[in-house]
Amino acid sequence: MDIRNRIEASLQRALEGALIDDAPPRLAAAVRHAVWPGGARVRPRLCLAVALACGDDDPLLADAAAAAIELLHCASLVHDDLPCFDNARLRRGRPSVHAAYGERLAVLSGDALIVLALQGLGAVAARAPQRLPAVWAAVTRGVSMPHGIVAGQAQECEPQVVLSDYQRAKTGALFVAATVAGAEAAGAPGAPWRALGACLGEAYQVADDIRDVVADPEALGKPVGQDVMHDRPSSARVHGLLDATRHFGELVDEAAASVPACPGRHQLQALVRAEGERLVPTALYADLLRQAA
Amino acid sequence: MDIRNRIEASLQRALEGALIDDAPPRLAAAVRHAVWPGGARVRPRLCLAVALACGDDDPLLADAAAAAIELLHCASLVHDDLPCFDNARLRRGRPSVHAAYGERLAVLSGDALIVLALQGLGAVAARAPQRLPAVWAAVTRGVSMPHGIVAGQAQECEPQVVLSDYQRAKTGALFVAATVAGAEAAGAPGAPWRALGACLGEAYQVADDIRDVVADPEALGKPVGQDVMHDRPSSARVHGLLDATRHFGELVDEAAASVPACPGRHQLQALVRAEGERLVPTALYADLLRQAA
Repeated sequence: MDIRNRIEASLQRALEGALIDDAPPRLAAAVRHAVWPGGARVRPRLCLAVALACGDDDPLLADAAAAAIELLHCASLVHDDLPCFDNARLRRGRPSVHAAYGERLAVLSGDALIVLALQGLGAVAARAPQRLPAVWAAVTRGVSMPHGIVAGQAQECEPQVVLSDYQRAKTGALFVAATVAGAEAAGAPGAPWRALGACLGEAYQVADDIRDVVADPEALGKPVGQDVMHDRPSSARVHGLLDATRHFGELVDEAAASVPACPGRHQLQALVRAEGERLVPTALYADLLRQAA
Repeated sequence: MDIRNRIEASLQRALEGALIDDAPPRLAAAVRHAVWPGGARVRPRLCLAVALACGDDDPLLADAAAAAIELLHCASLVHDDLPCFDNARLRRGRPSVHAAYGERLAVLSGDALIVLALQGLGAVAARAPQRLPAVWAAVTRGVSMPHGIVAGQAQECEPQVVLSDYQRAKTGALFVAATVAGAEAAGAPGAPWRALGACLGEAYQVADDIRDVVADPEALGKPVGQDVMHDRPSSARVHGLLDATRHFGELVDEAAASVPACPGRHQLQALVRAEGERLVPTALYADLLRQAA
């Protein structure tokens, strides 16, 4: 089964016990809306790519970690879109959860997704007691306090924000969770995989900032200019577009170089470079250089 | 150590890794505000009382389950108080989290509490792989979909609500989690303990409805008349105060009778009756009978 199908199947498995006829129908619909159709599924793809590079000898555990990470990401998007945060009416090219189902069901479906993510992972990981503690720590740290995505989002409520701390927690933490949990699920030590997650997390954040300025809204599926509108810290605003694009390229290089020795090292490095090209084509940097000259 | 002290110590342990200097200070303050000073700590007291009645041979596991259940309860209160739900400015006699820290930190501190509850339980339960699956299932089902407290709260967003389903999920589910997890944490089968949790959950809900009508606001620490104001289903409104008070007494009797055979059966039954008296004094029923005559 290819990675995309594995992810969709594991998301189905994680939610099948919850989305039954007994569940409140509107809550079930809001949860489905938050999860399907998905975005790029970047974090679970990364998690499984690392597990595969490390031998993937317990695919069910890797799948459960990947599904948990994606569900936690979906939950964070639902809550980030709420009126009290970004007040975003669009997500992935259609109404956000609160726009479609109201604010109360947006709060509750986000809550349910957090619970279901961890509930499913804990249930599967209990089968693998030796690997459970490390996989569990990797995933929960990525979302929790003090350094996970909840803490990252909360930095927006602090009077002063250090840009790198903010991005590391808000975006990087779940990427680190993806690489470390992917390795640990396959029985490999997770610590050497932190750098890959951190570099890619920062690269995605920088790419998002760049695309917030240069992409067309149709292609992104959400309104552009959100960072400026909400006065959020943004690499593209702080460093300028050219610098941001150069920085992105360096992060992709750094990410590829950081891949630890493992059976699938070269394949994973190629994947990292291809993903970088998909996000911010190197042609954009060449264009910007020409414009700046 | 007495039960109260055990609970406070286990809550401290569950949050000590999160509330460090590195955490966003306002988020950490909002989480503290949601947890301390606590309310009656009814659910974790029940969980530990059952574990003790069953021999309590793994107190750290029972403590972790009790703490997780209380933190999930605190999270649900923070989110229930949000402007889009009850818009309650007071909780436990002081400002609710959103009144004190704003809506964004109320959403995020609730999210953080859900994560921290399950993160801590998973980490402790990993030490006890044989008991982990049953304890884990008990706690997560109590909060999750389709029948946990998140699903219960979501019933308020459905066009039609069956009162008993609503109360069973919104309140009863976490009481059932408390009794079943308390038993399983002590190595006893959890299923025979479901009835105690279900009866007490319903009894607390009925008591809450009664106290929403007859108690004085100072003693409750929150505004009374909330059910009428928000047009919520309420036993006291549906059945009248006298019937509700009679029903409460029956539920306490049923709860005491349901306690399964175990080393501490009589002590636990006495505790159940004392708690019933604390919530709705039998003198109230006598008063109401006199008034009705």
